[in-house]
Amino acid sequence: MTDFAHTKTLFHLPEGVIYLDGNSLGPLPKSAPARIAQTVEAEWGGELIGGWNKCGWMDQPTALGDRIGRLIGAAPGTTTMGDTLSIKVFQALSAALALRPDRRTVLTDAGNFPTDLYMAQSLLDALGEGHSLKAVAPEEVCDHLGDDTAALLLTQVDYRSGRRHDMARLTATAHEMGAVTVWDLAHSAGAIAVDMVGSGADFCVGCTYKFLNAGPGAPAFISVASEHAEKTEPILAGWLGHAAPFAFEPAYRAGQGIERFRVGTPPVLQMAALDAALDIWDLVDMQALEERAGALGDILIAEVEARFPDLTLASPREAHRRGSQVSFRHADGYAIMQALIAAGVVGDFRAPDILRFGITPLYIDDEDIRIAAERLETVMKTRAYDLPEHRKAKAVT
Amino acid sequence: MTDFAHTKTLFHLPEGVIYLDGNSLGPLPKSAPARIAQTVEAEWGGELIGGWNKCGWMDQPTALGDRIGRLIGAAPGTTTMGDTLSIKVFQALSAALALRPDRRTVLTDAGNFPTDLYMAQSLLDALGEGHSLKAVAPEEVCDHLGDDTAALLLTQVDYRSGRRHDMARLTATAHEMGAVTVWDLAHSAGAIAVDMVGSGADFCVGCTYKFLNAGPGAPAFISVASEHAEKTEPILAGWLGHAAPFAFEPAYRAGQGIERFRVGTPPVLQMAALDAALDIWDLVDMQALEERAGALGDILIAEVEARFPDLTLASPREAHRRGSQVSFRHADGYAIMQALIAAGVVGDFRAPDILRFGITPLYIDDEDIRIAAERLETVMKTRAYDLPEHRKAKAVT
Repeated sequence: MTDFAHTKTLFHLPEGVIYLDGNSLGPLPKSAPARIAQTVEAEWGGELIGGWNKCGWMDQPTALGDRIGRLIGAAPGTTTMGDTLSIKVFQALSAALALRPDRRTVLTDAGNFPTDLYMAQSLLDALGEGHSLKAVAPEEVCDHLGDDTAALLLTQVDYRSGRRHDMARLTATAHEMGAVTVWDLAHSAGAIAVDMVGSGADFCVGCTYKFLNAGPGAPAFISVASEHAEKTEPILAGWLGHAAPFAFEPAYRAGQGIERFRVGTPPVLQMAALDAALDIWDLVDMQALEERAGALGDILIAEVEARFPDLTLASPREAHRRGSQVSFRHADGYAIMQALIAAGVVGDFRAPDILRFGITPLYIDDEDIRIAAERLETVMKTRAYDLPEHRKAKAVT
Repeated sequence: MTDFAHTKTLFHLPEGVIYLDGNSLGPLPKSAPARIAQTVEAEWGGELIGGWNKCGWMDQPTALGDRIGRLIGAAPGTTTMGDTLSIKVFQALSAALALRPDRRTVLTDAGNFPTDLYMAQSLLDALGEGHSLKAVAPEEVCDHLGDDTAALLLTQVDYRSGRRHDMARLTATAHEMGAVTVWDLAHSAGAIAVDMVGSGADFCVGCTYKFLNAGPGAPAFISVASEHAEKTEPILAGWLGHAAPFAFEPAYRAGQGIERFRVGTPPVLQMAALDAALDIWDLVDMQALEERAGALGDILIAEVEARFPDLTLASPREAHRRGSQVSFRHADGYAIMQALIAAGVVGDFRAPDILRFGITPLYIDDEDIRIAAERLETVMKTRAYDLPEHRKAKAVT
């Protein structure tokens, strides 16, 4: 079992704030400042270039990757860290396409996170030769898998509604049709129990600054099913993915397995924050986390629906059909969220009308959800959201 | 004038060590730990998601980019930060090729840093349609510019010998032949006075963890000549390069100018270290730096040649033909460097036989160079490099 009362004590949470935006940026683990200071002062300051060997900097991408791998059900030795999620989507999709050289279509859903769509389109444009991106309604994905589908590129949990794709079922169907799957776990990793190996997923990518709490600008991850890694030559053939980076050979020779999905120098300071964040995740059972998140989400839905009939549930009602967030629609959604933030409940807003609340059992409990609902009630009853300062231009979040 | 005695006081340098490896990883600026701690504790810890607006995280890539732009003679508003240098090479080269759609050859020199060659080759393989990479001897680059040369991709300063390409002359010749230029400034930025605008260079990329002292895993930069930025659609079409990232539009619309060369979320903690490092660079005149580096390199060459005739100069003798490093060849180079590091002089080794010494006037002075030469003399006279521990397998640096 996981002791969520204990994990809550391991985060720095500003006094008086109920933080329901851990799906955008997780809070600071209390151990992170000292860990980062150690890396900066003792390692960089004290060891200088020697840090690459003596302090394990060069091995971090795979070592930390494996700790994330456990959280998403990836096999050991199949996950590495680095770059941003946009880059990892590009990398995974190009590798997926290389496994299906005779097919030309990438299937996705139209509600996918925009950067996935942009990176996919730009890759397909560069490849030319009839490659194209087909974006269909999320519920119709299966119907559009065809003989020409090289890859199915999906974000498991929708960033607005929290709607969850059935990863095992869609992967199985895609495989039946001969397609390879690329799953973006941005809103899954650290949110729900993902079983990469069990679902048969081919490529998984995700970020670590959301539910995983590794800080602003934390590196992304990529997991590649064991049977694929050695079969693809990466399009982003960076020197740290080379079989012998420090031999400085003129021609690229792809490294072993997942190593070839490394590109450039790892972000050592961000890795220190990730390392501290993962110490907390080492205490967590993912099934327990998912159940707890579902229960907390159910409480929020019940509280909101009982009090505010004009806030319409935008997330699936059944916990097992959503990720670790609950969203509601309201025409005044933007202003309501600004007023709510001013009242000490931090969620966020996604156009055109979505109020989004991240549910993060590591540091949010029943009492927090009830306080959030009470503060929302005050905002709605006093129409605090009609104040001009809450109707200003949209914030960048 | 630049007060190099003052800048030396601004770095943390381990007691007793003469650090001649700032061309691999610069040392810790004394102000960096507090700056990073402020970003971690007050900004991430205190502001959480609000940090993106309130703490300027979202604007860092361009704001810090402009401060680097000054150091390389880029026009204001033409530089942005993020990713690794490998990714920026890929991005710049793809944009360069897009400007010359009717040409198929990328010309480079065979001594270019391997990741530049790997990333270029993998991009060209992906583009297909006859695209190819032609790598020739550095001194023969001009002779190979032809009607089919789309882009000239060069690292200005050779990472082994420190040999410097004439950026203005080669750019002019490339332009006469109708080619676009991509300059990798990994060993130039913070090392010598670069004049991007004056030389007419089209794209410049570089890293910030070497001479710029921004720490292990610090982000890369890309500068794009004003006339080009709006003409190219980035192959790496990440959401933060979109004209309206937070409108979450399904189709990519490239951002204005250099903004479209952003990809994903900036590495905020690494940016804090870079910010601290750039405070020191704000005090530096690049012409004065280059002259001082040249003079220090001349001293090192004179000291070494007077004492050790079997160490052969591998760098150009004339200061204006080399970057900010001096290299020597010796058959026992690897073991000598290990013995020298044990004696408190940190340089590095590059296969097969190069001893490499970075010259960094911000924190290295005449006296340091003389002490280094004395310690090298002790190593050579006592044949300390014959000790078995110095002949072990190569370190990763």
